[in-house]
Amino acid sequence: MIIIMQSHATDEQINALRSKIESYGLTANISRGVERTIIGAIGEERQLNIEALQSLPGVENVVRVVKPYKIVAREGHNENTVIQVKGATFGGKTVQIIGGPCSVETQEQMDLAAQFTAEAGCRLMRGGAFKPRTSPYAFQGKGVEGLHIFRTAADKFDLPIVTELMDVRTIDDFLKYHVDIIQIGARNMQNFDLLKEVGKLHTPVILKRGLCATISEWLMSAEYIAAGGNHNIILCERGVRSFESAYRNMLDVTAIPFLKKETHLPVIVDPSHAGGKAWLVSALSKAAIAAGADGLLVEMHPYPCEAWCDADQALSPNELKTLMDELRPLAQAIGRDI
Amino acid sequence: MIIIMQSHATDEQINALRSKIESYGLTANISRGVERTIIGAIGEERQLNIEALQSLPGVENVVRVVKPYKIVAREGHNENTVIQVKGATFGGKTVQIIGGPCSVETQEQMDLAAQFTAEAGCRLMRGGAFKPRTSPYAFQGKGVEGLHIFRTAADKFDLPIVTELMDVRTIDDFLKYHVDIIQIGARNMQNFDLLKEVGKLHTPVILKRGLCATISEWLMSAEYIAAGGNHNIILCERGVRSFESAYRNMLDVTAIPFLKKETHLPVIVDPSHAGGKAWLVSALSKAAIAAGADGLLVEMHPYPCEAWCDADQALSPNELKTLMDELRPLAQAIGRDI
Amino acid sequence: MIIIMQSHATDEQINALRSKIESYGLTANISRGVERTIIGAIGEERQLNIEALQSLPGVENVVRVVKPYKIVAREGHNENTVIQVKGATFGGKTVQIIGGPCSVETQEQMDLAAQFTAEAGCRLMRGGAFKPRTSPYAFQGKGVEGLHIFRTAADKFDLPIVTELMDVRTIDDFLKYHVDIIQIGARNMQNFDLLKEVGKLHTPVILKRGLCATISEWLMSAEYIAAGGNHNIILCERGVRSFESAYRNMLDVTAIPFLKKETHLPVIVDPSHAGGKAWLVSALSKAAIAAGADGLLVEMHPYPCEAWCDADQALSPNELKTLMDELRPLAQAIGRDI
Amino acid sequence: MIIIMQSHATDEQINALRSKIESYGLTANISRGVERTIIGAIGEERQLNIEALQSLPGVENVVRVVKPYKIVAREGHNENTVIQVKGATFGGKTVQIIGGPCSVETQEQMDLAAQFTAEAGCRLMRGGAFKPRTSPYAFQGKGVEGLHIFRTAADKFDLPIVTELMDVRTIDDFLKYHVDIIQIGARNMQNFDLLKEVGKLHTPVILKRGLCATISEWLMSAEYIAAGGNHNIILCERGVRSFESAYRNMLDVTAIPFLKKETHLPVIVDPSHAGGKAWLVSALSKAAIAAGADGLLVEMHPYPCEAWCDADQALSPNELKTLMDELRPLAQAIGRDI
Repeated sequence: MIIIMQSHATDEQINALRSKIESYGLTANISRGVERTIIGAIGEERQLNIEALQSLPGVENVVRVVKPYKIVAREGHNENTVIQVKGATFGGKTVQIIGGPCSVETQEQMDLAAQFTAEAGCRLMRGGAFKPRTSPYAFQGKGVEGLHIFRTAADKFDLPIVTELMDVRTIDDFLKYHVDIIQIGARNMQNFDLLKEVGKLHTPVILKRGLCATISEWLMSAEYIAAGGNHNIILCERGVRSFESAYRNMLDVTAIPFLKKETHLPVIVDPSHAGGKAWLVSALSKAAIAAGADGLLVEMHPYPCEAWCDADQALSPNELKTLMDELRPLAQAIGRDI
Repeated sequence: MIIIMQSHATDEQINALRSKIESYGLTANISRGVERTIIGAIGEERQLNIEALQSLPGVENVVRVVKPYKIVAREGHNENTVIQVKGATFGGKTVQIIGGPCSVETQEQMDLAAQFTAEAGCRLMRGGAFKPRTSPYAFQGKGVEGLHIFRTAADKFDLPIVTELMDVRTIDDFLKYHVDIIQIGARNMQNFDLLKEVGKLHTPVILKRGLCATISEWLMSAEYIAAGGNHNIILCERGVRSFESAYRNMLDVTAIPFLKKETHLPVIVDPSHAGGKAWLVSALSKAAIAAGADGLLVEMHPYPCEAWCDADQALSPNELKTLMDELRPLAQAIGRDI
Repeated sequence: MIIIMQSHATDEQINALRSKIESYGLTANISRGVERTIIGAIGEERQLNIEALQSLPGVENVVRVVKPYKIVAREGHNENTVIQVKGATFGGKTVQIIGGPCSVETQEQMDLAAQFTAEAGCRLMRGGAFKPRTSPYAFQGKGVEGLHIFRTAADKFDLPIVTELMDVRTIDDFLKYHVDIIQIGARNMQNFDLLKEVGKLHTPVILKRGLCATISEWLMSAEYIAAGGNHNIILCERGVRSFESAYRNMLDVTAIPFLKKETHLPVIVDPSHAGGKAWLVSALSKAAIAAGADGLLVEMHPYPCEAWCDADQALSPNELKTLMDELRPLAQAIGRDI
Repeated sequence: MIIIMQSHATDEQINALRSKIESYGLTANISRGVERTIIGAIGEERQLNIEALQSLPGVENVVRVVKPYKIVAREGHNENTVIQVKGATFGGKTVQIIGGPCSVETQEQMDLAAQFTAEAGCRLMRGGAFKPRTSPYAFQGKGVEGLHIFRTAADKFDLPIVTELMDVRTIDDFLKYHVDIIQIGARNMQNFDLLKEVGKLHTPVILKRGLCATISEWLMSAEYIAAGGNHNIILCERGVRSFESAYRNMLDVTAIPFLKKETHLPVIVDPSHAGGKAWLVSALSKAAIAAGADGLLVEMHPYPCEAWCDADQALSPNELKTLMDELRPLAQAIGRDI
């Protein structure tokens, strides 16, 4: 850690810093420059309390030297993590497209959705049984019954299932229905108690980025899961909040190459929630894959106009099929497949 | 609800809209303008599925006419809600200053903190037993033991206590220790299962604004609590995320008058987390009160440089005292007291 | 235009609205709903003063029905605008890659840069003679001498030149050196006097998006140029400001398909300024083309580490060549060429 | 400047850094830590090209030690700058309220506006003759004629005038009409050629913050003016762009104390443009003064509903008078006057 002192910092203040650093078991390297004194804290920097140093008199700024995350960092774990989900891999050569509706509605709807998902060539299926809705008056999901419906429909087509966990109290139900990938939604990215619980499981986790989470905060949330022992983490960029009101969120495509450099974990993208409109999904899907994403989470509904939730962003079964056909040559052009 | 059709929308598309609106039990009022056709949906608009309308062919845009929130809206409930917490009121003439440390550390620290909080003239005390930390390797709070320490210290000075609830599984502990105000933190503002649970209690709730939550989303989260039956909700602005990196968050002072117009609930401000620096607390506190805030949540630690958490933003006991002395004439100048 | 009245609006207030609307020569269509009265203003809405309506007593909200831009809107001009620059086209099947350094430094540097740009297969060259720098103490560009150097270098390889105009007083110099495309930088996107002046020319204009300009504001700035008579406008997305500090700007890839729907003008992307790092250029370039961009503006310097400006974002000549080789199959995969 | 090397940086890379630093005439101080090597560049850091260092192989991050601004920095110039404008002072004990309409419309309108401004107790008057409008079809201001009208009206009440300069070509007109304070608008904050020209004058300048300008960029724009010789600079916070769409801009009240610490220049606030609504002006004005602002720029129109521009944010003459009456005791409570 580097401490930059104010220009008029006194010797007493500098010595206080030195003592504080040494009290944590680190060594202080003091360098007196023309305009300012700089103090380097040499040793295991993660033991230092950055705010406590910041609060000492005479300190202008404190700069970290090492990354706050360890297990999920590519530094020290150079190989890509490849996650296996019943034969489908995340983080390898294949770009995985996960299709399915926003929410579980009925057995008929899910049976059709599963059939269309499989027919389009997707290897996994998504669908929400528990729904985080802005309004308490909106449809909140079918709950445990939804898990049953989803499992039944997906099993007919041998599709592993991805569904969102919102509450620690329903983890047992998720295990009972053998949910193949647990999704942690954007609004729960910093629900640390939930992260700790999924950290104790072996089930792969899709961790969505919070609405305005920095890359660093996001990786620290992944670190929470990893620190518990579950290293099967897939990061999902789903658009961030911005000043632009023309579309729901702003897909942060730069996050994809940046994450691939910072972490060994697979990175996927949700073009449906990012743009918020079905007609934007094709362009955003292509951009995501071209930028290096390891997969997509795409909303498709048998009858989009009848969907109980996010109707305007769901593709029709035909549109999903067309999308898959468009993405295959694109993936090949960058040396991957779908 | 108003539906604006695309300029080339066909009669067929317009009729489909009409049918859809009527299927929800509302009436469609069609107005053909020079450049576009506008459709008004007359009736109980909250029954309409806005995204489903949005997804219909020929639709350019859908505009809500009524607010999505009802119970917390000032419209239809013109009187200010005044919340009583053991003699201290929120939403009345008095501006309530809640003082105390970021986190509960030891009995000695809390005893001192309680003493200084009371001496400065604050009528309530804050302190975290469960801490939401970005890093899994940072101090996570003393947990239930912290509640015990806090209750013990505060009782010596008859201070009602405010502390953060992060997990539905600890509600019973909060009730056991008679927590006077339950705080829902910024990261849990849209943890809907948590909101539903506190909605079932009678304990007053401080609902902090999410890091990039809109006013409307925030009020909808309050509506979740209110819809469960708990109307004792205090909104707390704590700074939002912005492009500016010179300070931790950007205090959204405009939110204060805006909320006072939109809702009858009390509105307080957390100047400590907003600015992230002790030296900014005085100016931000004054701005908040001048703009109409009903209270403040101010961090104070007996020995700031030794704090286990957020050391750089805690006031010293003397600084808190000075702040209180500065705020009194300011409050009087706008017709309030402290 | 639609005016939504407050729930308790009086008849008098509603009548005042009606009179105001009629005073502009439009007709008022009043629809009294269950909770609110809605007034539609039928006629040429661009004649209405939206703020003046907003300020009238009893008004809750005013909603536009038509787009504020006309000439640049795709509505009413369905064909793509294709701009010819000495044989290179923007807005057609070919994706145009414009290469070159951030700034003009010396004749030798520009001669080399032109050679490498041509060898890589780029059909146009970029380079700044006038540089908008955050600091008054930083290199401000070579000025008119830079235009001369640039023209000389580019002519040796028959490359049309793209360079930034910052000041109305240098337009004559731009014409004297036959600048092929005038670039308006992000910081001048709403320098309306500058826009009006380039609107009087026939030279094609690259209009960069402001650091936090909405799509609508950006198109209105294009409308300023078009309203003056110059319809040869190329929009350039270059990343927007966000809360994320890990990279310089956030490339708004969603803007590409959105703009292609809203306007008939060509849309290009500047991946170098967006990411701010040379190693991000490849991924962002691919994302931009996959999302439908009509071209790229890529920084390349003969010796990046020696560049006088933005050294960390310039590709080396070899890296540019490699990039072009990677982009060709990608463009083909989506039915375009380079 | 401090250079943090990547964890696997080689000795060769470290030596290249050393050579580069020494080639600028500075000394390199190399400190090999447990996880990383840190290089301190000792000497006049402003001579270093930060991006060129950033681009060298093996570099992880480069951190500035000194501020990029010099003349406007409080460091090295501890006294507040106090600017005199015909007897009215900015930066002293008095909080200056500048009143007046958004734009100059007619002589009658300006005569009335001047009378009401003076009667309310304001010591200076604002009004725009040249208007930066998002739309080319909106009223663009009366131009030079507007300067004449404004001067005539203000002289009747001995009010110094504040008006916006948008184009270097109109500076002579501003001098001819003895404009007392030249305003540089938010959209021109980084119009560097304009800044350089006003830097050559002696007329005080109000420099508004750009829509998403950081504090550092804003001070660098002030530095442009100061570097030219004009040190009479008043900074004006006018709200920044955010994700919140409930109000036009987000007033960044934290900027006020932060600027007072970083710079010796006076800081004022424009509550009218910040909130965008007349009913928000009172609360925002109070917040600004409480936070330490040296003045306000408040829109008032003789007949707000008839204003040609920004009608919804103008106070009526009576509202301005009431505002002044409310602000006086508030200013006194913090030891200032109005």
